[in-house]
Amino acid sequence: MFSERIERLSGSLIREILSLTQRPGMISFAGGLPASHMMPCFDFTQLPAELRQYGPSEGEPILREKIAEHVRQLGIQATAEQVLVLSGSQQALDLVAKLFIDPGTPMLVEAPTYLAALQNFKLFGADLHELPLSAAGIDPEQLRQTAQRTRPACCYLIPTFQNPSGYCYSPETRAAVSQVLDDLMLPLIEDEPYRELAYDAVERRPLCAGLKQAPFIYCGSFSKTATPGLRVGYLVASPKLMPYLIKLKQAADLHTNRVGQYVLAKWLDTPDYHAHIATIRQYYRQQRDTMIDALNRHCQELAEWETPPGGLFIWARLRKPLDTREILKTTMARNVAFMPGEPFFATPVDTAGCIRLNFSHASADAVEQGIAIIKDALQDAFVNLKS
Amino acid sequence: MFSERIERLSGSLIREILSLTQRPGMISFAGGLPASHMMPCFDFTQLPAELRQYGPSEGEPILREKIAEHVRQLGIQATAEQVLVLSGSQQALDLVAKLFIDPGTPMLVEAPTYLAALQNFKLFGADLHELPLSAAGIDPEQLRQTAQRTRPACCYLIPTFQNPSGYCYSPETRAAVSQVLDDLMLPLIEDEPYRELAYDAVERRPLCAGLKQAPFIYCGSFSKTATPGLRVGYLVASPKLMPYLIKLKQAADLHTNRVGQYVLAKWLDTPDYHAHIATIRQYYRQQRDTMIDALNRHCQELAEWETPPGGLFIWARLRKPLDTREILKTTMARNVAFMPGEPFFATPVDTAGCIRLNFSHASADAVEQGIAIIKDALQDAFVNLKS
Repeated sequence: MFSERIERLSGSLIREILSLTQRPGMISFAGGLPASHMMPCFDFTQLPAELRQYGPSEGEPILREKIAEHVRQLGIQATAEQVLVLSGSQQALDLVAKLFIDPGTPMLVEAPTYLAALQNFKLFGADLHELPLSAAGIDPEQLRQTAQRTRPACCYLIPTFQNPSGYCYSPETRAAVSQVLDDLMLPLIEDEPYRELAYDAVERRPLCAGLKQAPFIYCGSFSKTATPGLRVGYLVASPKLMPYLIKLKQAADLHTNRVGQYVLAKWLDTPDYHAHIATIRQYYRQQRDTMIDALNRHCQELAEWETPPGGLFIWARLRKPLDTREILKTTMARNVAFMPGEPFFATPVDTAGCIRLNFSHASADAVEQGIAIIKDALQDAFVNLKS
Repeated sequence: MFSERIERLSGSLIREILSLTQRPGMISFAGGLPASHMMPCFDFTQLPAELRQYGPSEGEPILREKIAEHVRQLGIQATAEQVLVLSGSQQALDLVAKLFIDPGTPMLVEAPTYLAALQNFKLFGADLHELPLSAAGIDPEQLRQTAQRTRPACCYLIPTFQNPSGYCYSPETRAAVSQVLDDLMLPLIEDEPYRELAYDAVERRPLCAGLKQAPFIYCGSFSKTATPGLRVGYLVASPKLMPYLIKLKQAADLHTNRVGQYVLAKWLDTPDYHAHIATIRQYYRQQRDTMIDALNRHCQELAEWETPPGGLFIWARLRKPLDTREILKTTMARNVAFMPGEPFFATPVDTAGCIRLNFSHASADAVEQGIAIIKDALQDAFVNLKS
């Protein structure tokens, strides 16, 4: 009765875990929600009457200009004509899948990578090939060899404060990866929802800024810096990709809601914007440090991790390979949730031995309590492993 | 480089014509825009702070309840759990295509039918079979035979004030079509963006309300009654389809913008809503009558048409088969635009001999002038046909 792709339609494990974390008294490091009380209040007064009518599929001209200006400051030479406003940057995944993927189309992704990206690319039947990720990024030489071997339609990367790992590609990796993509003329999908959540001084130049000829789609979000409830994101793409992307956007939902685009464009134009970014960086940096401190005190012998220079997540690698979904069951019984690492890999793994910890949401007390409970669960599991 | 479906990605002819109609002095009967000055002003004050955060993929609970209440009044026995709020009802076409269509999947559509539906279904590779449409609707017996012969995955119908035809299925057709769908357990996609724009007393009971067992997806819009710029629409589906549709919605854009959902839900709860519907009906009825009057005076010998009991369009059938895209070129040279009939058919036709005239937009003077120019163009074309 249904299409073949429905057999590949996976529910989001995050979604299931999140619904469980609604229980009262639950300490959750599972989600990736920005802190509600840190979000700006937009000005919804004096909305132009014309916003009520249908708008352009490409997006509001004032917002497209602001976005083009922003990405030019990052080193991506783009005009407003290369900007497509989206109903959240999640929509970029849908458009990318439609543009590139037939059942069996090879595509490159990081291992681990963003769950919803895997969900979308698999839905369209992509043959996903993984590029193992370390704290400095993917290995450029491995990228070249894997691409030459598998002939992918495109490559999906999250170089800055990655989800789930929090990793940020080193300057050397950034330059080398862009070079390989240019050499192979391999289209790059660069996803950067977290780039403004920077807590330490690190290089964040987009890979797209280093490209000389490879086609690109650069995806950006306002959900982490402003408010996700508005559902306004964007992509910036090579000129020759734009006509296809605009038609795909039009077919998907005609255009993005205009009120959200308008209030956002106005806000980006005020000093409030820069002040707000500084405020949330300060806040999230403190949150991160609190969790790193708790991990240092409780979990040194059980796992290792990097201090993420930005983003919302810590990726803890257990010192022994375990199915972290089993650990989750133990901690959930004590009202503590985190994201098991297994679903973040394109190729099914039995024991990822990694967990994702979100630090933006819980209070300092909850972090202390929750990490101690995770420690207990890991200790027990390690003992059982030996016996 | 691209997926196979991109070869099937058509631009919207409407889009191209609409961009030409932006020229100053142009009289356009081409688009289907609701009248901007007739749209309500929503109350964007006192928005709850929680709307800033990510929301449920299914939609805001208060809006889902209102929608369920609305469709129950239409005779569709549905709960709020069967409602999925969408980023405009256009998104239903994308989700339907993903749910049902693989390349080559048979599907039934009216002839003519909604352009963007054709665009989406073709993009996913549907093998479209047409059900010829008359003023009373499709032929139920032909539906049965075509369905038995082609074994379609689903059937897409717009029974009430159809786009492009303005036709409204008769009560007898409604009952018979629902019966056939039930007999064959054929899933129905019923699209009703225009149902509240009713100018004459006609039966508008949804086909879905007449189903006893066939699966259904009922698609509704607020773009014609409220404001399209908010991009909030919905679908109501059989319980067993919901889990798939919710996951597809989540993959597409996580959820619909929450501010739009909220202000709409509040507005639907005020007396303003019903007063507004009465006002726009009165306005559009007058607009329709003005155009019918102009057609009666100028075009009786060149074409025939029904007075549409609702919606935004008149479908004029020329007395001789002509390629109406050629007629359009002639009228465009005199600054008058309409929609040629050819693109509204799933199977390419050389000479539809039909044109779609939108009556919601132009002033009475412009209607008089524009219809006279169309008359001239038709007369010339008829003369050339003879010679």
